[in-house]
Amino acid sequence: MVFSLGDLAVKFGCDVVGNPETEISSVATLSSAKEGSLTFYSNALYKEKLKKTNASVVVLKGSDIDLCPVDALLCEDPYQIYTKIVALLYPLPCYDGKVSEHALIKNGANVAESSYIGEFTSIGRDVTIGENVFIGPGCIIEGNVNVAANSRIIANVTIINSVDIGERVIIHPGAVIGADGFGNVKTENGWLKINQIGGVKIGNDVEIGSNTTIDRGSLEDTVIHNGVRLDNLIQIGHNVSIGEHTAIAASAAIAGSSKIGKRCMIAGQVGIVGHINICDDVRINGAAVITKDIKKPGVYSGSFPFEEDKVWKKLVAKFRRSNK
Amino acid sequence: MVFSLGDLAVKFGCDVVGNPETEISSVATLSSAKEGSLTFYSNALYKEKLKKTNASVVVLKGSDIDLCPVDALLCEDPYQIYTKIVALLYPLPCYDGKVSEHALIKNGANVAESSYIGEFTSIGRDVTIGENVFIGPGCIIEGNVNVAANSRIIANVTIINSVDIGERVIIHPGAVIGADGFGNVKTENGWLKINQIGGVKIGNDVEIGSNTTIDRGSLEDTVIHNGVRLDNLIQIGHNVSIGEHTAIAASAAIAGSSKIGKRCMIAGQVGIVGHINICDDVRINGAAVITKDIKKPGVYSGSFPFEEDKVWKKLVAKFRRSNK
Amino acid sequence: MVFSLGDLAVKFGCDVVGNPETEISSVATLSSAKEGSLTFYSNALYKEKLKKTNASVVVLKGSDIDLCPVDALLCEDPYQIYTKIVALLYPLPCYDGKVSEHALIKNGANVAESSYIGEFTSIGRDVTIGENVFIGPGCIIEGNVNVAANSRIIANVTIINSVDIGERVIIHPGAVIGADGFGNVKTENGWLKINQIGGVKIGNDVEIGSNTTIDRGSLEDTVIHNGVRLDNLIQIGHNVSIGEHTAIAASAAIAGSSKIGKRCMIAGQVGIVGHINICDDVRINGAAVITKDIKKPGVYSGSFPFEEDKVWKKLVAKFRRSNK
Repeated sequence: MVFSLGDLAVKFGCDVVGNPETEISSVATLSSAKEGSLTFYSNALYKEKLKKTNASVVVLKGSDIDLCPVDALLCEDPYQIYTKIVALLYPLPCYDGKVSEHALIKNGANVAESSYIGEFTSIGRDVTIGENVFIGPGCIIEGNVNVAANSRIIANVTIINSVDIGERVIIHPGAVIGADGFGNVKTENGWLKINQIGGVKIGNDVEIGSNTTIDRGSLEDTVIHNGVRLDNLIQIGHNVSIGEHTAIAASAAIAGSSKIGKRCMIAGQVGIVGHINICDDVRINGAAVITKDIKKPGVYSGSFPFEEDKVWKKLVAKFRRSNK
Repeated sequence: MVFSLGDLAVKFGCDVVGNPETEISSVATLSSAKEGSLTFYSNALYKEKLKKTNASVVVLKGSDIDLCPVDALLCEDPYQIYTKIVALLYPLPCYDGKVSEHALIKNGANVAESSYIGEFTSIGRDVTIGENVFIGPGCIIEGNVNVAANSRIIANVTIINSVDIGERVIIHPGAVIGADGFGNVKTENGWLKINQIGGVKIGNDVEIGSNTTIDRGSLEDTVIHNGVRLDNLIQIGHNVSIGEHTAIAASAAIAGSSKIGKRCMIAGQVGIVGHINICDDVRINGAAVITKDIKKPGVYSGSFPFEEDKVWKKLVAKFRRSNK
Repeated sequence: MVFSLGDLAVKFGCDVVGNPETEISSVATLSSAKEGSLTFYSNALYKEKLKKTNASVVVLKGSDIDLCPVDALLCEDPYQIYTKIVALLYPLPCYDGKVSEHALIKNGANVAESSYIGEFTSIGRDVTIGENVFIGPGCIIEGNVNVAANSRIIANVTIINSVDIGERVIIHPGAVIGADGFGNVKTENGWLKINQIGGVKIGNDVEIGSNTTIDRGSLEDTVIHNGVRLDNLIQIGHNVSIGEHTAIAASAAIAGSSKIGKRCMIAGQVGIVGHINICDDVRINGAAVITKDIKKPGVYSGSFPFEEDKVWKKLVAKFRRSNK
């Protein structure tokens, strides 16, 4: 696809500096950009790269225009406008409504004609698939599951047991949604399984990463609210609730029944123990372990900076002696 | 399903307070319970909720009966009895013996007639599937694998290479059992793969969570003993042994050749390095890193409580200066 | 398979002590070895086990020969020679070129005749599969993917979106390669997805563990260089680069755009934040969190040794008071 600088300016309400006829057909970094590429600048760290860029167009703030050796698109939030231009030039793929002849749609399943169902995918009898849904190959969707309009379930995803999925949701390969939570009662003869009878509710505009697991509720539902972003390999335990527009990075683990507020940002490898409440607008830095409620918005941390091993060993020895 | 209070009392050997004809058709929390619901009470934290519950029946200890505004079932361990009632009202689904016409059973595979094999599931030629086994859709089972009676392999599970699975085992979606362990020898030309020739033995009554990985042994077997509970996204390295009735929470990682005793409880994100021995009845708190043997039953910890970031930064600075 | 001691000595350039006609048909540990077994000795910790071994042959250094009660194969690096003998006695399985009648090869896909494609595996129209490749059952390979000669993709693997895979690569079940990275821009209306348009390049002789996820680049490629070893459940974010012969153990997480040098050894559960550079020959101990560049080869650490819980609580209390 090709757009002129003028087209982009009109589309996104930006000002043009330079020739509105300049054509853009790709995006690139400041350093790798060539003729026909658009890039963006928003961080003074890259000032020298901006000065030398071979891009045809740079998206930047008006206050940075003097640094820019080429045509420019001026706006308040260059990264956001750049992201919208990426989506314009490289849209997510489109699919016609179609059921692969290698898919299995069980009797009783309700699949909108506009939806695509890939090969080796199975749609169970109590499943409803809304309009313009894409379900790629190798997926298992069964057991009272609804997938609302315009969602994309990429490949090899498993969704089972009373799961409602909203509109425009994206679920990446290997994710498992609605499997039993980890519920066990100790008895004199070992563990007794607590049958898990809740479901999972996933709002609109949620994205779920590869191999992430979201357990069904033990009794009430596990809930992922609108606009949540989950990266890869995240564990979401039973009855957890994640508030609107919260983002969680890879390999974090949220234990059962914890409630996380809106607009939180939780870094990679963070652990949150069970039955915790975290208020809105909390940011948690990488690998911190959250063992009690957080009631005040702000930034929280709990992991140590690494050291050379010999320095670390001395620090640890000192720490352990501090108890004496 | 509907049971009377009297039925439940007889079935589980409890005493009734109130009308034995009271009918129960669902379970719920103290707060969400309505007419026809049963709930339980065992933690004084919820005393006020008990007093206001709209449940038809509460399972509790005799000593708490004065707090209970409705009919009751009296017993020593309310949570255990409640869990058994959940299993009665919401049993795991039953399946007739059947092989989906979209499954592939290879020549030489031995599948009991009473077992169910789902669509897009492949059973290899050296595989034996016992009586009343449920193997859901999308599973790959191959390479000298035995699955004993009454086990349930939910969906999209991969089991390969000399794996024995006991009776009444449950394996959740995305789990991988019997893949090669991480065995490499350093050479002048980089890493040399150590071909992994052991298998995996899984006892009876084991439950394995979604996307958990259990590697085959390098030489001898990886062993998961009877009654073990593994949550989601857990790594079990080659030659590990997990003792009877041990439970491990999500995102823990057990490196190769470590041996864990019986009845241990290992919290989420715990890491256990290789070649470690942990005795019976050990409890390890969340995110601790276990770098040497544990020879005494007890509770062990190793992760720091988080702080507000600015407080944490000061603490860390002080810690790093402690070495001077 | 059976080899004589003399055969092995010739094949690997070792000296024989004992009878060159001695036959070897299996490998075992020092303790479990029986007649016909070969084992190795390289660690003085096991001296007593060596003295009592029932193996037919032990691979060891010439300087240890006096401890050995049976025939021996002498060499400089016993573990390496042993590993090569394991590969000789227990080779990876061979497959004839064949496409399962239950596989789906889409029009336009290019699959070498010598390659094997398993049941319920789908090969997309822009995919090229080189000579002698094994792609097991349940795999989804689509979207401009190339797999070069002699690679093995075991089962239930998902590879999508502009992924190049080198020769002799092994990918274990559940791995996901080429899914979208975690790219989001904050806006007044929540998160805006950054369409991910880079790919993944995987060199030769790479091994990738079960349920590991390697995201496609956001703009440029994610790159795994020749000879890299990745264990299970590892997260590799978008635009990461892992240098030649680096090995990473299970459950580690490398955030977006970090660059890791050659021959590094990164232990389990290590976290590396985004946009970090780590030089060659760095070793990072378990569960350390790497928050800034490492510019000097060496060993680095950052996790605390665990303690009995009551001791740990006192240490932590003291630490928290240190700020006062």
